[in-house]
Amino acid sequence: MRLSVILFLIAISTVLAGSVTIKSLVFPTETSTSYVGMVPKKPMTLNAFTLCMRVATELPGERETILFAYRTRDYDELNVWRELDGRLSFALAGGTVMFQVPPFSALQSHLCITWDSSSGASTVFMDGKKSLTKTYKQGHTIQPNGKVIIGQDPDNYLGEFDANQSFVGEMCDINMWDSVLSDRTINDLFTGKRVPRGNVFDWETAEFEVKGQVQVVDRVL
Amino acid sequence: MRLSVILFLIAISTVLAGSVTIKSLVFPTETSTSYVGMVPKKPMTLNAFTLCMRVATELPGERETILFAYRTRDYDELNVWRELDGRLSFALAGGTVMFQVPPFSALQSHLCITWDSSSGASTVFMDGKKSLTKTYKQGHTIQPNGKVIIGQDPDNYLGEFDANQSFVGEMCDINMWDSVLSDRTINDLFTGKRVPRGNVFDWETAEFEVKGQVQVVDRVL
Amino acid sequence: MRLSVILFLIAISTVLAGSVTIKSLVFPTETSTSYVGMVPKKPMTLNAFTLCMRVATELPGERETILFAYRTRDYDELNVWRELDGRLSFALAGGTVMFQVPPFSALQSHLCITWDSSSGASTVFMDGKKSLTKTYKQGHTIQPNGKVIIGQDPDNYLGEFDANQSFVGEMCDINMWDSVLSDRTINDLFTGKRVPRGNVFDWETAEFEVKGQVQVVDRVL
Repeated sequence: MRLSVILFLIAISTVLAGSVTIKSLVFPTETSTSYVGMVPKKPMTLNAFTLCMRVATELPGERETILFAYRTRDYDELNVWRELDGRLSFALAGGTVMFQVPPFSALQSHLCITWDSSSGASTVFMDGKKSLTKTYKQGHTIQPNGKVIIGQDPDNYLGEFDANQSFVGEMCDINMWDSVLSDRTINDLFTGKRVPRGNVFDWETAEFEVKGQVQVVDRVL
Repeated sequence: MRLSVILFLIAISTVLAGSVTIKSLVFPTETSTSYVGMVPKKPMTLNAFTLCMRVATELPGERETILFAYRTRDYDELNVWRELDGRLSFALAGGTVMFQVPPFSALQSHLCITWDSSSGASTVFMDGKKSLTKTYKQGHTIQPNGKVIIGQDPDNYLGEFDANQSFVGEMCDINMWDSVLSDRTINDLFTGKRVPRGNVFDWETAEFEVKGQVQVVDRVL
Repeated sequence: MRLSVILFLIAISTVLAGSVTIKSLVFPTETSTSYVGMVPKKPMTLNAFTLCMRVATELPGERETILFAYRTRDYDELNVWRELDGRLSFALAGGTVMFQVPPFSALQSHLCITWDSSSGASTVFMDGKKSLTKTYKQGHTIQPNGKVIIGQDPDNYLGEFDANQSFVGEMCDINMWDSVLSDRTINDLFTGKRVPRGNVFDWETAEFEVKGQVQVVDRVL
């Protein structure tokens, strides 16, 4: 009897696991006008974070491309870039830390970035694989009350976009936590587990504001 | 008692899962004469398909390489290419759709291509990772009564092969379905599940005709 | 009751699986002096082997880099290289066998090399993916009583290191067996299983001698 219950629960979970539909953002062409604004669930005063997303882009390696921009009135508080030379970087209000990673492609990559202020430990994960650890901005705190933009790099508060740095491709499942998730949890997210949900951004419930030529399509996971 | 039965079945499945032996095709050198012909299980009148294979090749990026060719008397009905610039493409009797993917290498890649006539949705999967979706040949139907060739690109019905486009490396587990499989099913196939078996080509039972210098070796999965 | 026991064992295994802490070697800069010596559990008279490790390096492709060196007084008995052109190679006292593989990066790759004297069959695995098979040094036996060095290539017994060939990056989980493990076992090791433990080198219990600027850090798996 108890066994039947367990098997029933397993069956139900499998069915439910297969039924998640999420939104996916398609940026079909280079523009200086298309972007998606996202509203965080809580103020972005952060001493640590994990930021994850799924990204596919066929943009060539020799092009700076913005992947995530969080800017307050005066500072780029957290920008994630694919650099000219193909490296992945992130920048917290001054300086930048870079990682030599496999190139993005038409295939979707699962990308996570983790940073912890107390040690400065910074890592990236692609498809569940962890990078070596770099030390960056130890003791720093990310400031609240800015704006998160997907698709463009704002050179001032919500403007002065540069088409040459815009994102072209598909992006979804942008989730953020105010702590560093374990390696195992990040690998679980890559392979499709939907918990834990982000406490700064939770893609499944996130509100977003779409501007310009961005297609919002459904994706069944 | 019922638990024992379940554990017994799990154990048996594990043992059986480990015992599949399949054929693998080794094309050791560039030729204009070596190829393998494959016979479909049913007429290739297709309004949708999923085509999968495992491929390893050390051919450099700067070389067109044929991966799969299905030609009727007058048309290339379905050709899959690794293009000069390393992109993966497929072509259905006119035009072509291209995907920027990671390069092939000595390591075996699991490749799938899906296409659906009703929407024109075209995607590729490498090692279970899905690409962005492109629209191609909406409303088209692939025609029956042609010939499937592995290793060469026929410029007419079964002839005029070009050594510079021939396949060199190892290929196996070529399976084809007349529908678009789900992302999850394709990921399961990548990780080694052997069901569903292809209803157009099923590698485990496929008949093939080997011409020239092609080695057929056993591979235990 | 029996079900409870099984669920308890599953729970315990999961907890234990999550609790392994291993040492990881960080080589922060190019030197001709930093290395780690490793002591095998048994004499390295080998007619077959599987050698695995986890490697992350941001060294560019155009640089020879030593990944593993086992040298007796007169011969390089087993050297593993990332070659100038990015290929992976290994050499057993004469000649070398090369594999075109995806580039290393800041992300950790799981690398295994297998060789069997009876057939000469040589393969590499990256992240669980098997390469095509090459034939190399059939009938050869690796000789005992040498020294294993990580980080440098000794041009004589334990000396004449060349900084341009030194390893820079992070390496851990170097395990070696005196037999060829199955594809499935190697994939299990990639995905985190900790058995079977190496019978030539077992990283979890290995003694090593650290020279120069090598940081030994803990890594929780």
